[in-house]
Amino acid sequence: MANQETEISKLGEFGLISHLTKDIKFNNSSTVVGVGDDAAVLDLKDGATLVTTDLLLEGIHFDLRYVPLKHLGYKSAVVNFSDIYAMNGRPRQITVSLGVSSRFTVEHIEELYAGIRKACEIYEVDLVGGDTSASVTGLVISITCIGVADKEKIVLRSGAKPTDLICVSGDLGAAYMGLQLLERENQVAAKAAPDFQPDFAGKEYILERQLKPEARKDIIELLAAEGIIPTSMMDVSDGLSSELLHICKSSDVGCRVFEDRIPIDYQTAVMAEELNMNVVMTAMNGGEDYELLFTVPLADKEKIEKIKGISMIGYITKPELGAAMVTRDGAEIELKAQGWNAF
Amino acid sequence: MANQETEISKLGEFGLISHLTKDIKFNNSSTVVGVGDDAAVLDLKDGATLVTTDLLLEGIHFDLRYVPLKHLGYKSAVVNFSDIYAMNGRPRQITVSLGVSSRFTVEHIEELYAGIRKACEIYEVDLVGGDTSASVTGLVISITCIGVADKEKIVLRSGAKPTDLICVSGDLGAAYMGLQLLERENQVAAKAAPDFQPDFAGKEYILERQLKPEARKDIIELLAAEGIIPTSMMDVSDGLSSELLHICKSSDVGCRVFEDRIPIDYQTAVMAEELNMNVVMTAMNGGEDYELLFTVPLADKEKIEKIKGISMIGYITKPELGAAMVTRDGAEIELKAQGWNAF
Repeated sequence: MANQETEISKLGEFGLISHLTKDIKFNNSSTVVGVGDDAAVLDLKDGATLVTTDLLLEGIHFDLRYVPLKHLGYKSAVVNFSDIYAMNGRPRQITVSLGVSSRFTVEHIEELYAGIRKACEIYEVDLVGGDTSASVTGLVISITCIGVADKEKIVLRSGAKPTDLICVSGDLGAAYMGLQLLERENQVAAKAAPDFQPDFAGKEYILERQLKPEARKDIIELLAAEGIIPTSMMDVSDGLSSELLHICKSSDVGCRVFEDRIPIDYQTAVMAEELNMNVVMTAMNGGEDYELLFTVPLADKEKIEKIKGISMIGYITKPELGAAMVTRDGAEIELKAQGWNAF
Repeated sequence: MANQETEISKLGEFGLISHLTKDIKFNNSSTVVGVGDDAAVLDLKDGATLVTTDLLLEGIHFDLRYVPLKHLGYKSAVVNFSDIYAMNGRPRQITVSLGVSSRFTVEHIEELYAGIRKACEIYEVDLVGGDTSASVTGLVISITCIGVADKEKIVLRSGAKPTDLICVSGDLGAAYMGLQLLERENQVAAKAAPDFQPDFAGKEYILERQLKPEARKDIIELLAAEGIIPTSMMDVSDGLSSELLHICKSSDVGCRVFEDRIPIDYQTAVMAEELNMNVVMTAMNGGEDYELLFTVPLADKEKIEKIKGISMIGYITKPELGAAMVTRDGAEIELKAQGWNAF
């Protein structure tokens, strides 16, 4: 611990919470009372309320050897915002619970909180409450996000219909390749001289996609501007294959996506090449992209084409046709679910 | 692992979630969409919205050697409801995030969930979402509760005024004495013959207060029936001393509570005696009582006296008088904050 760092025991639980939250300003008029009472008070009369929650555990979801705490805080908040956008809503408030072990100092937790607050600032979300606790094991971050939506414009996973177009924003697989890069450099560093510096030149994009992902607020706004309400929508957190299967199951439909339509960035392709990995499989199963996957009626095709950064990757079918990817040579590969299986 | 138990890897993440949540029924008309999409959808137009969150970590907040998983689930939910009642609100929805390590089976998590669902049933709350994750360390439970309240009847910690009466529901220290009992019997069991059975006869009350606490919904309803809106309120989770100091700080007031007015159950007193502990200190600092601590204007004294199960334990003073307990012999002992300090 560096000299200027402060042990958390100096502040104690209540001291730490008030230290971290003392100068929080609200972005939303619906936020009435924030941190500091038994519960936050919100006034959400302007539409339906959305709630989502994510639990991030050290050793499972992040590795502090190569994830800076500020980035981790930012990402922890953004992944929740992404779930709210995926309902066609706007995030408004979050609560943050932290479990912190004794190897962390006040400055460490400040860094983490700085990232969370930065994300709140950029996405105009209010931090309204939380819980801070000691942990005998690793760092635990649990964030719950409250959002609002026009009730008649909420988009579930269950509304996709045969012939609907399948669309995805941005590109896929970059975050996963960023993680592979970080793990490779970390292994090299472990064996190298103390002054070793990892070389990320030409790989900044995939690194940023892994360390500091963004939620696609812009896409939600562009769709609204074009008057498009998707028939179904999800964010891509576990991987495109897995999310497509969720939509097919919830909507009781099948799907076909085309290998040559999957959007992949140049840096993702280069990294996959270096690691001798199949880049399309990376994009299908990588996860953590936080892009939006959605379906629209065929009639919206021209409107979608007008929006930059959206790819039409396939179409919805009747359920009996199943879910498959059509390869460049016309073969069909059945999609498989991933999800964790760390047990 | 017994023969009939199921490894979690058999179901996987998505399988486990849908297995646990498949037959959930809603109690509240404000619950529109529950588990199974990116976010839950709530329609909360009937008042202000309350949000509270609690993080429970194995080894810090609970010890699975003597806490049955079903009780743990029940308690995890109830402590959140308690925070909503402490705002003079009604809990409506919860989200549940679990981090589960490989030593747990599907049946274990079912037990935990059964307790959570039992609490939801009794308090008429809907389980609307959550996250389930592998954990490389212990069990992690993060619950967020959404509630509603009439905006003009919300009770914060900050409204106590000099001369207000300080009231507390039920009795204090029992949950802490229940924990001491469990720890003692566990230590005895570790050294005893395999057929050892802990002896809890005559101590059922303190055991239940520790293992299966209830939130004081009844008190909130009784206060409303008498037309009483407290000037400040909190639930007693960290201990009476600590909560009194929170109210004094938030309201910028002082307080006097009287040692001989602190409500203590007979079993609590007997257990303290057995363990050679000061029973009043136990009641002041024990924590986990989940009773309601609140202040009312002096003019409400007669109405309060009509409600069974509420004790008037002192009064609010000007801030310069500080926060103190008046002992039986008239001496004043300054109140001290507790909170965790596991660092």
